[in-house]
Amino acid sequence: MRIHIQKQPGDPMPAITPLHWREAASRAGDVGQGHEVSFGETAADLAAAIGEAEALITADTVVLGLRPGEAPRLRLVFLLHAGINALVPEAGRLPPGVTLLNNSGAHGDKAGEYVAMAVLMLANHLPRFIAQQSREVWDRRFASVLAGRRATVVGLGALGGHAARRLRWFDMRVTGVRTRTEPHPDCERVVAAEALDAVLPESEFLVLACPLTPRTQGLLDRRRLGRLPREAGVVNIGRGELVEQEALLDALDGGHLAGAVLDVFVPEPVPPGHRLWRTRNLVMTPHMSAGDPLSYNLSSLAIFLENLRALREGRRPPNQVDLARGY
Amino acid sequence: MRIHIQKQPGDPMPAITPLHWREAASRAGDVGQGHEVSFGETAADLAAAIGEAEALITADTVVLGLRPGEAPRLRLVFLLHAGINALVPEAGRLPPGVTLLNNSGAHGDKAGEYVAMAVLMLANHLPRFIAQQSREVWDRRFASVLAGRRATVVGLGALGGHAARRLRWFDMRVTGVRTRTEPHPDCERVVAAEALDAVLPESEFLVLACPLTPRTQGLLDRRRLGRLPREAGVVNIGRGELVEQEALLDALDGGHLAGAVLDVFVPEPVPPGHRLWRTRNLVMTPHMSAGDPLSYNLSSLAIFLENLRALREGRRPPNQVDLARGY
Repeated sequence: MRIHIQKQPGDPMPAITPLHWREAASRAGDVGQGHEVSFGETAADLAAAIGEAEALITADTVVLGLRPGEAPRLRLVFLLHAGINALVPEAGRLPPGVTLLNNSGAHGDKAGEYVAMAVLMLANHLPRFIAQQSREVWDRRFASVLAGRRATVVGLGALGGHAARRLRWFDMRVTGVRTRTEPHPDCERVVAAEALDAVLPESEFLVLACPLTPRTQGLLDRRRLGRLPREAGVVNIGRGELVEQEALLDALDGGHLAGAVLDVFVPEPVPPGHRLWRTRNLVMTPHMSAGDPLSYNLSSLAIFLENLRALREGRRPPNQVDLARGY
Repeated sequence: MRIHIQKQPGDPMPAITPLHWREAASRAGDVGQGHEVSFGETAADLAAAIGEAEALITADTVVLGLRPGEAPRLRLVFLLHAGINALVPEAGRLPPGVTLLNNSGAHGDKAGEYVAMAVLMLANHLPRFIAQQSREVWDRRFASVLAGRRATVVGLGALGGHAARRLRWFDMRVTGVRTRTEPHPDCERVVAAEALDAVLPESEFLVLACPLTPRTQGLLDRRRLGRLPREAGVVNIGRGELVEQEALLDALDGGHLAGAVLDVFVPEPVPPGHRLWRTRNLVMTPHMSAGDPLSYNLSSLAIFLENLRALREGRRPPNQVDLARGY
């Protein structure tokens, strides 16, 4: 297969190199062999390769930049990210007949660790202590262990599943929220999205780890924020648009929430002067919760090759996304 | 036994109440029964009870405040903290013939969670992101998972042991440092204190969780800080005096260390205007890593009663401290 790997302009992650490819291919057995692979970073690199490429490994913006007829042989696109929300409204612009794969799974371990960190920071009053430190104030306040306390994780895909697993290590009582309600090994219970309102009042920690779709846009709105218990903490590793951001900032500034640890925002990058920077008890990280520069490229290529194996064997590729469903 | 429980003035933890005592005693079986227990917060409360008290449950400052001959029947003192460094130089002022117990064990779970949080924060560049947030700067930087990375935990008592356990959950390679070198279930290897210098260069994360003794005072000095790899992270949940503090702050300000998460300092409380508040890539919490207001009193009383059982059965109480050894 002719495979082209194109780095997205401005992507802060290190580019996939021939070394990465050889390592991943050698681990994948027969399905890693017999390919012609090219690597590009510039528009010229892409133009030189896309006419012949049968598979393209890249990001959504590169796919949306393809002109009609530019990729006549393309039949497989592997996106190096998990969220496909930017592609959904543009489905008509995608090359016809292409199977679209996302990179769900490459981010799980890293995202799970970020959520464990975020919940531990909220439980240990870090948002408050960070503010005290900046004011040179020593004001002791103790914190309790996580054991027995309740966290709700919205979305139990690769991100949310790994998050739930780590919260269980600390003996938390984890409620999972997803479209299907079958049990999850790391959740005390799983409820349907429609039941979110019912579990919010007992969610001391709320973790958003679901994809952004028309159904999840603005999921955590002002009304639902009001249903969280006083002094609850919020973590968002999904997309900024999952939250009615102004309402969340009001809940923090007003003291209804004890704190939030957010990795995603509207807009990104957050511009200087934005209200986010000055919101009380908010800890911000620059959309890095799920990326791991050391393992990311190898994990991504392993997932691509695993999907290629499924296609060869006539199975549905596990990472095939459904633009109508939105993930 | 006549037991007096005296709250230390200014202790921010909630006082032990008769309800706590009854609950702990009822869980302890026969050793919890048949005592006369009094509770005090003021100097007058203490004066009224100390003449008859056979056991005193309190903090070091209260013990040091006793006048010679004031506690003629006292034979057991249970300190509601683990560190006894303040008592060591004052050993001659302690009532003679008293068995001294510390509260090692009540803090383990809480301290272990704090260390997990601190290491995850350092791995995820939180010291840097907190500073960026205060300057309203968005600058992405990715981080790798903890799996396979090396942490060194100095001290494998209740605090360090629980810390090592949680770092192992994340598949870290943990080196333990303590006086004895027998294996520890959560450490890949255990080395003697004398071998600390040899393991420092491969310690990406260094966690101080040992008691403060004449041997550990200034343990992490300028020379040893220089042996840590560039971009290492330091966590201290022991005592501020374990570290040559000015050298640590130099290593942070100079960029040799990527960050530090410190819960203990010299002096405490840290006064406004102190250099600590303005040191780069330093996250400070106000000596709260090991206290848990929800479980602390019950755990403490359970440890006291367990030691009482050992005394009754003629065994050495597990929490008996040795002022000569210093812990």
